[in-house]
Amino acid sequence: MIEGSNLLETLRLPQDIKKLDAQSLEELCSEIRQVLINTVSKNGGHLSSNLGVVELTVALHKAFNFANDRLVFDVGHQCYTHKILTGRLEKFGTLRQQGGISGFPRPSESVYDAFSAGHSSTSVSAAFGMSQAKSLKKDNGYVVAVIGDGALTGGLAYEALNNAGRSKDKLIVILNDNKMSISRNVGAMSRHLAVLRIRPEYHTFKSKTERLILHIPLVGKPLRNGIFKLKRAVKGLLFKSSLFEDMGFMYLGPVDGHDLKKLNDVLEIAKNAHKPVLLHVNTIKGKGYSFAEKGPNVFHGVSAFDVETGERLSGGESFSGAFGAALCSFAENDKRICAITAAMCESTGLEPFQKQFRSRFYDVGIAEQHAVTFAAGLSISGMIPVFAVYSTFLQRAYDQILHDAALQNLKVILAIDRAGVVGEDGETHQGVFDVAFLSSIPNITIYSPATFNELRHDMKLAIYNDKGVVAIRYPRGGEMENAGEFDLSEKLFDVFFDENAGLTLVTYGRETGEVYKAAKRLTAEGVSLKLVKLNCIRPVPDGVLDIVLCSKKVYFFEEGMKNGGIAQQMTTRLYEKGYTGTVSITAVDDRFIPHATVEETLKMLELDAESIYNKIKEG
Amino acid sequence: MIEGSNLLETLRLPQDIKKLDAQSLEELCSEIRQVLINTVSKNGGHLSSNLGVVELTVALHKAFNFANDRLVFDVGHQCYTHKILTGRLEKFGTLRQQGGISGFPRPSESVYDAFSAGHSSTSVSAAFGMSQAKSLKKDNGYVVAVIGDGALTGGLAYEALNNAGRSKDKLIVILNDNKMSISRNVGAMSRHLAVLRIRPEYHTFKSKTERLILHIPLVGKPLRNGIFKLKRAVKGLLFKSSLFEDMGFMYLGPVDGHDLKKLNDVLEIAKNAHKPVLLHVNTIKGKGYSFAEKGPNVFHGVSAFDVETGERLSGGESFSGAFGAALCSFAENDKRICAITAAMCESTGLEPFQKQFRSRFYDVGIAEQHAVTFAAGLSISGMIPVFAVYSTFLQRAYDQILHDAALQNLKVILAIDRAGVVGEDGETHQGVFDVAFLSSIPNITIYSPATFNELRHDMKLAIYNDKGVVAIRYPRGGEMENAGEFDLSEKLFDVFFDENAGLTLVTYGRETGEVYKAAKRLTAEGVSLKLVKLNCIRPVPDGVLDIVLCSKKVYFFEEGMKNGGIAQQMTTRLYEKGYTGTVSITAVDDRFIPHATVEETLKMLELDAESIYNKIKEG
Repeated sequence: MIEGSNLLETLRLPQDIKKLDAQSLEELCSEIRQVLINTVSKNGGHLSSNLGVVELTVALHKAFNFANDRLVFDVGHQCYTHKILTGRLEKFGTLRQQGGISGFPRPSESVYDAFSAGHSSTSVSAAFGMSQAKSLKKDNGYVVAVIGDGALTGGLAYEALNNAGRSKDKLIVILNDNKMSISRNVGAMSRHLAVLRIRPEYHTFKSKTERLILHIPLVGKPLRNGIFKLKRAVKGLLFKSSLFEDMGFMYLGPVDGHDLKKLNDVLEIAKNAHKPVLLHVNTIKGKGYSFAEKGPNVFHGVSAFDVETGERLSGGESFSGAFGAALCSFAENDKRICAITAAMCESTGLEPFQKQFRSRFYDVGIAEQHAVTFAAGLSISGMIPVFAVYSTFLQRAYDQILHDAALQNLKVILAIDRAGVVGEDGETHQGVFDVAFLSSIPNITIYSPATFNELRHDMKLAIYNDKGVVAIRYPRGGEMENAGEFDLSEKLFDVFFDENAGLTLVTYGRETGEVYKAAKRLTAEGVSLKLVKLNCIRPVPDGVLDIVLCSKKVYFFEEGMKNGGIAQQMTTRLYEKGYTGTVSITAVDDRFIPHATVEETLKMLELDAESIYNKIKEG
Repeated sequence: MIEGSNLLETLRLPQDIKKLDAQSLEELCSEIRQVLINTVSKNGGHLSSNLGVVELTVALHKAFNFANDRLVFDVGHQCYTHKILTGRLEKFGTLRQQGGISGFPRPSESVYDAFSAGHSSTSVSAAFGMSQAKSLKKDNGYVVAVIGDGALTGGLAYEALNNAGRSKDKLIVILNDNKMSISRNVGAMSRHLAVLRIRPEYHTFKSKTERLILHIPLVGKPLRNGIFKLKRAVKGLLFKSSLFEDMGFMYLGPVDGHDLKKLNDVLEIAKNAHKPVLLHVNTIKGKGYSFAEKGPNVFHGVSAFDVETGERLSGGESFSGAFGAALCSFAENDKRICAITAAMCESTGLEPFQKQFRSRFYDVGIAEQHAVTFAAGLSISGMIPVFAVYSTFLQRAYDQILHDAALQNLKVILAIDRAGVVGEDGETHQGVFDVAFLSSIPNITIYSPATFNELRHDMKLAIYNDKGVVAIRYPRGGEMENAGEFDLSEKLFDVFFDENAGLTLVTYGRETGEVYKAAKRLTAEGVSLKLVKLNCIRPVPDGVLDIVLCSKKVYFFEEGMKNGGIAQQMTTRLYEKGYTGTVSITAVDDRFIPHATVEETLKMLELDAESIYNKIKEG
């Protein structure tokens, strides 16, 4: 029995939600909040956004039947209540743990998870695909997308709204407005929402009038429709029309997202719209847990914390922090340096830069594409733009890197955070593709520092030495505990242990820590080997190939995709140069990587020191 | 002397434009149109869009000084008049020819080309980067972006407008509305523009009033500002506010884009706005050439044609056509099949599908990201979506392919047109990256048919056999003339010439035609070799590696990037399997490819039959 889940545990969910009275529903929400806070305080995860949508999620499950209706969460990190309500209460303690349930919607986990997510702004596109499929198959069900105001700044969401607005589908887009785009002050959309937020609630008036009219027998429905038309015309004169109505949606709201009764009413209206609806819901991020309400960003994505005090375990210095501090020190002496973030100021370490150099700091919204092309525009005008971004989110700017920056050989610096495996966020967030997708683009230099010193040195090279696009990729968290042993400081590569050995290990980035550990153990046992550690991975620095060429056997260890990775590139160049030994590549081979801790993940991929040791021992 | 360019040739351009009277400006426009029609009729290129912006471009060069002010063309295919006006009249006859001027803006070609383009919807991002750089550097110049209504359907443009609307930059976004998004009926934006298009012209009233007021000494400016505020308030009540005003822009227009006087007036107002301006200009695609006015899509991108009759040289059957016909035949018997295009219905061969299966046909606008995620939504609901798209434009959907389709192993079929080198459109359009960027994504099958038969067979496999994302990539134009000699029909790969030879040539796709020619010539001269031709390139079909393994030397010929390409992947797998011979890879090695004919390009890349022959002869 889960503590404080008296009601939760007695219900057959989600069906029984429909039977609960108002008081029981409130109690249910309160119990869910307790489960959320307790679990996230132990497992880490997304807290604020989940606390914000408890009532909304309960109301949705009351209004719809998501065995046939479909519920699509944007980004997906706000799906915890949904998981609790759809048969995953028992397993909820395994949240984000290896073999446990994911922190994001996964259709493989439950029939109630309609679409996998992790990146922003995909929900309306996916939901419109589903609603069109329903229309084509004459299926009468609804499709509901839940999207935050931040995610609305992504161009993909706009493309989808623009396309879906012309349909007559039973598509309901719920704008979960927790003012995240406001706090980040990213542009016109946030201002527009600020205006809408304080308008009177259309739907409430509409709803009451409507219900009155519908009670008049026979004439009720036609009369309602006539009045609706008139009301729309009047409204068009009196109120500034919303952007969403411009897009072809019926706009409802704003409604208090913590008022179950109001949510229930407005959802019933939305169900009868006979056209796509945008329902604007105001919610409070972190609702119900005072520390999270006060610091919604702090509790957005957290590691374990103390429920009573709100205190989190400190993680020590991180690569993000080292990057941010270094960038400030460069920017102090060089007015050309600009910093760009796609709504990730804090987590990419840019907060000090934002404070110190406000005019050169840009939060462009969740808009990685624009971030890169905007950077190209700054660069061609003589500035030095640095875009700090998670590896996984940079995937969205592939074409902009290629077509707008690299093709013109413009200096755009990509500070790629969370490169490599990321741990508990799992398959949608792994930073294992950037090396492959960047390597095929001409004019790109890629650094993969393994220590803070290397990172700082690479930044200096990127700013003052290199031409064209320069990517500097570094892992989540801090340095490996043995970083001091292989720190290169100012070198593009180095060779450790016995330079003349016929057995060669090649690696780069955080993985160096694991390979170094294995190499140390092997040499202690008398195995003769050399470890080639790269700092610059593209182009492979002069001299590296020649050093490796004399080997009998080369082992590559790469914390990234095998296809298109550095190991494959180096292997090809080695054999083209006449290498006659053998190669063995350990990398991510054509698979997605599920959630687990970073340590567990490296073990699973045979990239941990123990597996490396065993592989080489076995020859 | 260029025929009919009497005035053009006497001017020092672009400076002298500012001195011309109304009549001379008209004459200039007329001469420019003649040059456009004559040149494109010989060289091929974009005709309709260029004829539509002659007056607009002349008016821009009259109003601004683009040596310091910056002019950014979206997509860039409408820059011909700009090139003629900025020192490239003499060279204009070399348009799109090897060593000649590009059909797109290229900063490497002229200081007046502010930003390279080729893909859609980048202009506002780049222009905002430039205007911010000007603000930071206290440079007083303007930045002008010219963007078509079609390009506005791309999410990147929205991300940029959203971000730029909050600034006070001297940024003027010119919406060149030639109703392309209307004819394609792609959604809410087109409807919104249709409403705006017929509104009274705000700016005209504004302009006259303003000029009157400004003549009152001293009080002029403050008074004007006050009146402006009042007008805006009134307008907000009387007219539906435009989406662009919601985004933070001052909206001006719509104005007749072929009326030089009106353009001149409105540009002067725009220059004095002290905030970002969106200027709505109505133009007629193909203006001044009757065949192009009647068929703007036909003359959008054309090969050579007869000026008198408008007749174009027929290109024979194309892969696009073969794809479109085959898709219709599958769709006739299978209601799950849907077709999606990102505003390229005709050129991807989908016109017959659109006519025959209207309810299952989707033109989503220039929105490749949405196209893929929308397809994923259709797929997870049991439909079989086929997205037909040019290789180069698919780059924009990299993250959606990975995160929304492949990660959930959803059947989404990518029909990748213009794969490989594309010829005259040049470096922004080369389809040489798709194999590399798709290969690193798990769960993807890639076919690269070399003949129509193979294409049809691959489509059948994709629809009925394969799981997950399936890419079928085929070149621009038709089959190679020797296609019959190596047509595989229903095989995933085949071996030609001497299966036991120690010399092996490996290739796929269109390049097979060149390699086959070279191989034939070599075997006729007594050289013993085998040619391994792949149809499925990922995964490499069972048995292929074993057949190649016994070779002494393997030559790979790949019409795509070397880094991340199939040759590198196969090379690695071969050596991992114990291969002891040597390899040679001919592919696109870390470079962008400029414009030239396809034949010239293949020669430049040493991928033509002659170069292949020579390379093997020389050993």
